[in-house]
Amino acid sequence: MVVTVQENGRKYFTFGEDGQGLELDNGSRLAPVTLAYETHGRLNADKDNAILILHALSGDAHVASHLGQDEEAQGAGWWESMVGPGKAIDTERYFVICSNILGSCMGSTGPSSENPSTKVPYGLDFPMVTIADMVRAQKRLIDHLQITQLLAVIGGSVGGMQALQWCVSYPEMVRSAIPLATTMRHSALSIAFNEIARQAIMADPKWMKGKYGDSPPELGLSVARMIGHVTYLSDEAMRRKFGRRLQDGSDFSFNFESNFQVESYLHHQGSKFVRRFDANSVLYITKAADYFDLTGNKEGAILGLAGVAVRFLVISFSSDWLYPTYQSKELVRALKREGLDVSFCEIQADCGHDAFLIKNERMEEMVSGFLSGVMGHD
Amino acid sequence: MVVTVQENGRKYFTFGEDGQGLELDNGSRLAPVTLAYETHGRLNADKDNAILILHALSGDAHVASHLGQDEEAQGAGWWESMVGPGKAIDTERYFVICSNILGSCMGSTGPSSENPSTKVPYGLDFPMVTIADMVRAQKRLIDHLQITQLLAVIGGSVGGMQALQWCVSYPEMVRSAIPLATTMRHSALSIAFNEIARQAIMADPKWMKGKYGDSPPELGLSVARMIGHVTYLSDEAMRRKFGRRLQDGSDFSFNFESNFQVESYLHHQGSKFVRRFDANSVLYITKAADYFDLTGNKEGAILGLAGVAVRFLVISFSSDWLYPTYQSKELVRALKREGLDVSFCEIQADCGHDAFLIKNERMEEMVSGFLSGVMGHD
Repeated sequence: MVVTVQENGRKYFTFGEDGQGLELDNGSRLAPVTLAYETHGRLNADKDNAILILHALSGDAHVASHLGQDEEAQGAGWWESMVGPGKAIDTERYFVICSNILGSCMGSTGPSSENPSTKVPYGLDFPMVTIADMVRAQKRLIDHLQITQLLAVIGGSVGGMQALQWCVSYPEMVRSAIPLATTMRHSALSIAFNEIARQAIMADPKWMKGKYGDSPPELGLSVARMIGHVTYLSDEAMRRKFGRRLQDGSDFSFNFESNFQVESYLHHQGSKFVRRFDANSVLYITKAADYFDLTGNKEGAILGLAGVAVRFLVISFSSDWLYPTYQSKELVRALKREGLDVSFCEIQADCGHDAFLIKNERMEEMVSGFLSGVMGHD
Repeated sequence: MVVTVQENGRKYFTFGEDGQGLELDNGSRLAPVTLAYETHGRLNADKDNAILILHALSGDAHVASHLGQDEEAQGAGWWESMVGPGKAIDTERYFVICSNILGSCMGSTGPSSENPSTKVPYGLDFPMVTIADMVRAQKRLIDHLQITQLLAVIGGSVGGMQALQWCVSYPEMVRSAIPLATTMRHSALSIAFNEIARQAIMADPKWMKGKYGDSPPELGLSVARMIGHVTYLSDEAMRRKFGRRLQDGSDFSFNFESNFQVESYLHHQGSKFVRRFDANSVLYITKAADYFDLTGNKEGAILGLAGVAVRFLVISFSSDWLYPTYQSKELVRALKREGLDVSFCEIQADCGHDAFLIKNERMEEMVSGFLSGVMGHD
């Protein structure tokens, strides 16, 4: 087991160099395994103030800026509005951990990592990982940090799935959970969009069955991201943000160039993503989300949660059509049926699924109040 | 001007062999122009029972089976449930005309037609056509049929846009209009999905800037269709139809094969489309839809409809999220503001945008009653 620390505050936790590594849901083992992670704040003497934040599909360990370091050089964290001194997830009170998920390409082991037996990137030889596998790897990190119980697991979207999975896999290690904009099982609509994104990538001849090395399937990946991006927005937000406005007040070009602002916005999102993210990681992580189902196909139930002591705050957003409020309500009903302590809030926000990433006072109040309650009363 | 008739009841109307042809919104001329069309029923002596049915993106002239001919050989029409003897659009009372739109590939002139000046398919040399251009071509066909006024123009989706455009372009030729599941201006969300579909096609190296000849960009076109297809369904319909069911009761394969029924359904829709439709036609027709805006960017108004005598029946479907009910209501408000006679109905249906294509008794009653009223009272 090795830990390395970079100047920018990013740490790398590696285990399984002995070849044992991690046992996966598909029956295989993965070794070695590295998780990139960051921590903010300090673990108190009782070790009871640790919060694990779980990121979504294309996120990373950099959840917030590190204090006292050059913020511009680090770049803003993906949840800067929520995490920091005096913020809803107050790093003066809590010890915050965020690790990049297994299967990603932002420092943790994934399909773009070197396969130790071939010395080239895994590509499709990387084993299929599930949300439970991601959580299993995170548990090793939490063990390493000598934390026996987390004050809270918090995440939105695919991060919310991980938060729920933590409660199922290691309920004794979790005092509370805040799943946001998520679901207890991936719907047909969400699977459909993920599958189309995967097909867009795999249709690109440059994908080469995952062995693209340094020349990735940029066009396919860009289309995949554009599909994803539209599902993160809402009809209302797009009308407000773009409407039918043309670029630079230009007129219709009567050709296939982008005329509408919404078109160039999507192109921009596509190209930006291609520069920072790995195509195979999109395949693996979307598949993990598609496989996610805590009900074991038993309508309205969550398997294995009866009698656990975890407290829940479930948050949905009114204009999220990827994981709509009715799915959060299904989750709440399932948790209540098991006798669990659940609070639920649907936040009015017109910005779609992405709402959980955007500064929102109501969300800040809910999360901050809930955490104080858990910290104070347990 | 030439008309040819095929055995299967399909007719072809060609004009502009003299080189004049059709003047288009982009300022160019297209010549010659052929429209494939079919007719059902008989034009009465007063020539006041003609109904023009307008099809959607990938539709064609074959709206219903021809009586007394081998129905299996013809294949069912795309609106078989609505059009025929004794049906809502009763071909024993009405003379029904349906023509394939300009820019399509189902018999009318489009990018896959031979460019007379090069003797090879137009490809991207085909001029960009608008919804108004499609209607302009249809008007030539109606003139040729010596019909001075249509009892009704009826269509869903892109067909509904054409119905509205008829009222704006040739109000004196239209007694009534039934736009279904449509909008008076294409929204940012709809533009976004169309643009992603276009990008999927153009990202395929086999697209070759439209000059693909006999080896079309099948993978790109298939992805484009899958995107379209999801937008035609609804979350609810997909849950009911597929849920998280796996193929043949199989278990997860832990690879990138299709496991879920919804995935293989989408693949099937993609491949089926590739066999019957032209990639460049998708580009042109989606662009025409994106350009469609009867408000001239003036919120809540339709230009040029004040004082016209057209009667309207506007129909929306509750689970259509591509052209949601609020857009039909905007249309209704705009028409009423101009003092027009408008009926409106939102039909409860869980099958999304495609609802207008599916047998629905409420829709049948509304359309049939409205047409009788217009026929009887005018």
